Amino acid sequence: MNIADYMQSLGQQARDASRLMARASSQVKNAALLATAEALDAARERLLAANAEDMKAGAARQLDAALLDRLELTPARIDAMIEGLRQVAALPDPVGEITDMKYRPSGIQIGRMRVPLGVIGIIYESRPNVTVEAASLCLKSGNAAILRGGSEAIHSNQAIAACLMQGLRAAGLPQAAVQVVETTDREAVGHLITLSEYVDVLVPRGGKGLIERIANDARIPVIKHLDGVCHVYVDQDAAHDKSMAIAINAKTHRYGTCNTMETLLVHESQAASLLPPLAQAYQDKGVELRGCARARLLVPSMLAAIESDWSTEYLAPILAVKVVDSLDDAINHINQYGSHHTDAIVTENYTRARRFLTEVDSSSVMVNASTRFADGFEYGLGAEIGISTDKIHARGPVGLEGLTSQKYVVLGDGHIRE
Amino acid sequence: MNIADYMQSLGQQARDASRLMARASSQVKNAALLATAEALDAARERLLAANAEDMKAGAARQLDAALLDRLELTPARIDAMIEGLRQVAALPDPVGEITDMKYRPSGIQIGRMRVPLGVIGIIYESRPNVTVEAASLCLKSGNAAILRGGSEAIHSNQAIAACLMQGLRAAGLPQAAVQVVETTDREAVGHLITLSEYVDVLVPRGGKGLIERIANDARIPVIKHLDGVCHVYVDQDAAHDKSMAIAINAKTHRYGTCNTMETLLVHESQAASLLPPLAQAYQDKGVELRGCARARLLVPSMLAAIESDWSTEYLAPILAVKVVDSLDDAINHINQYGSHHTDAIVTENYTRARRFLTEVDSSSVMVNASTRFADGFEYGLGAEIGISTDKIHARGPVGLEGLTSQKYVVLGDGHIRE
Repeated sequence: MNIADYMQSLGQQARDASRLMARASSQVKNAALLATAEALDAARERLLAANAEDMKAGAARQLDAALLDRLELTPARIDAMIEGLRQVAALPDPVGEITDMKYRPSGIQIGRMRVPLGVIGIIYESRPNVTVEAASLCLKSGNAAILRGGSEAIHSNQAIAACLMQGLRAAGLPQAAVQVVETTDREAVGHLITLSEYVDVLVPRGGKGLIERIANDARIPVIKHLDGVCHVYVDQDAAHDKSMAIAINAKTHRYGTCNTMETLLVHESQAASLLPPLAQAYQDKGVELRGCARARLLVPSMLAAIESDWSTEYLAPILAVKVVDSLDDAINHINQYGSHHTDAIVTENYTRARRFLTEVDSSSVMVNASTRFADGFEYGLGAEIGISTDKIHARGPVGLEGLTSQKYVVLGDGHIRE
Repeated sequence: MNIADYMQSLGQQARDASRLMARASSQVKNAALLATAEALDAARERLLAANAEDMKAGAARQLDAALLDRLELTPARIDAMIEGLRQVAALPDPVGEITDMKYRPSGIQIGRMRVPLGVIGIIYESRPNVTVEAASLCLKSGNAAILRGGSEAIHSNQAIAACLMQGLRAAGLPQAAVQVVETTDREAVGHLITLSEYVDVLVPRGGKGLIERIANDARIPVIKHLDGVCHVYVDQDAAHDKSMAIAINAKTHRYGTCNTMETLLVHESQAASLLPPLAQAYQDKGVELRGCARARLLVPSMLAAIESDWSTEYLAPILAVKVVDSLDDAINHINQYGSHHTDAIVTENYTRARRFLTEVDSSSVMVNASTRFADGFEYGLGAEIGISTDKIHARGPVGLEGLTSQKYVVLGDGHIRE
């Protein structure tokens, strides 16, 4: 079978399976998740052996250390996959929830029912645990999934797929509910992202390059995550201790995550008291500072920030620092240079807190909290398939609800339109 | 200025205006709507004169009668535009609503705030009243709009735009909040649908050809409406009177609307008692019937349906009729041949009603009600910018809420992530 026909057949089978998944009960879906967890537990040796093949091939292809680290399965990572499945099984099922049921003057009763999207295409890179994470969220939300992992993880992903098949079979669900693309042919992605008849939405996970390429070429809606250029703004009425704690946590808790602060904005009245001790704290942690002229007057050891620093997602121990004159300046800076991901104000002032929440156009806006909280688990979604920087459909952390839609339900008693 | 630069400048101005619109209060937005209504009322003669120019040019270009009818502005249609503005002003403002605010174990408090999408591009055909309808919904929901109407309506649209400008000015809102594209150059659409930096979502309104072309070429999410191949299924436990009333209303209340029934499915146990009197009723109204072999045994005057009839949106006094053996057959037929728009079951049976609602994959599913109810006004949305046949973002009738998104709001007291 050529690659176009193969992808077409995956799509067709996924569409058929999605009809059965949409009506599967919570119990049956949870049974499949728990049976998959057991299958993974029983297949530890096979998983490690398959992963060793990938690691060996990766080393031979001289993949870099960071990529090999993401590729590796360890007993602890298998534990985490198993635990993740159990957590998803324990989440409430969003499917079938009916809300806003009310009577209209015509006499009909109308509400909305939450329903699966249908078929979800997931395209991701080296981490094989994404196979389980993504499959479990799609399954729990009543969708069928087509998973296309990185070619370097093909053996690991196939071994994980076998466990997913066991789980689906044990619960009496169609095996085509989760399909892992079996070819490493790069053309497979090109076909997957144009199967608009069979695939309802795409979720690419990986580097910005991958995601931009897919968003550009797709003929299907994409839930995507691009940059995370997050800000903390320290207002003139900020409490010193909260400013210190939040600025340090938002930057240094983890450097490589999308919700890490990349630019610190400080009101000019706070700069003299805040920047010197903060610079010391950052220096202790090895964070490089790149400041505007006013910031550098207070902390001469800062490098000079250039224009591109204000829009860079460093994903590294580097922080841009700017002194601003007002809340308006801070909001304008964030809306202009930021990536509409997550931005926080530190303030005790009621009116400015309220204005910041309303006027900053980001998927998460915060008062007196670290940007690092922007996360599906922290927000109580239970798990996340990604963080959307789009405004359409899902914005911010995307959990089970983001993999569903709502249809209108109308109940009558022979009602006709006059 | 060339057309690319012109569209780029509209986009840039719309983006700037959208920031001001997002923070405009309900009172100010309503003032703009009501001032526009007054401006239209005061400009009746200018509107009719501008429209007469379009009508004259249209007649010279030999546009067909249906198109000329849609193009025409009459005093009654101006009344309707004015009334529409007042109705939108009276609707609740969705922007700023905060829901689901709750504490998390970490101590942060989290909820969601409804916010405008930003900039909405509307592309439509001959009806000039869409200019007011679309602008009013975008304005009320805090968005900026770029409107591209049909070239045949250019003078009417410009005259309406002048009233909108007056309304915005009177309320102190930026005039770029509503921009009507001033050129009839066809290339303008091509530029508009790729302005991804400035336009957040497109809403094409018009024939299927226009919508498919835009959906294919756009580089921006599209809220779109394609076919309305709607069904009524008469179950074995249907009440005869309700079946008759709903089948007649769903087909004959209006022929040209997307929520009109195009295929009637009848359980075999109901066919003998229902089809002959129903055929008589349809015949009295001039509806042509195209039936399956079993339906034609009962009503020999029916034409024979061919395969393509099951997936055709007639938008005309024509109805396809099929006798089916079970609820499963009906659901499978609807999911296979329908357009996932609106489908109804007539039944007194609880379990089959519940299964129909769950298993039919359409934006509106109904029990004992006419498909003609699928409409923003009937559903209580107040007004609609269209009916979405997509699953992503908005499904079914799209009102003000469909022109908004939600952002996460996080409140803390110096909270950091451990």
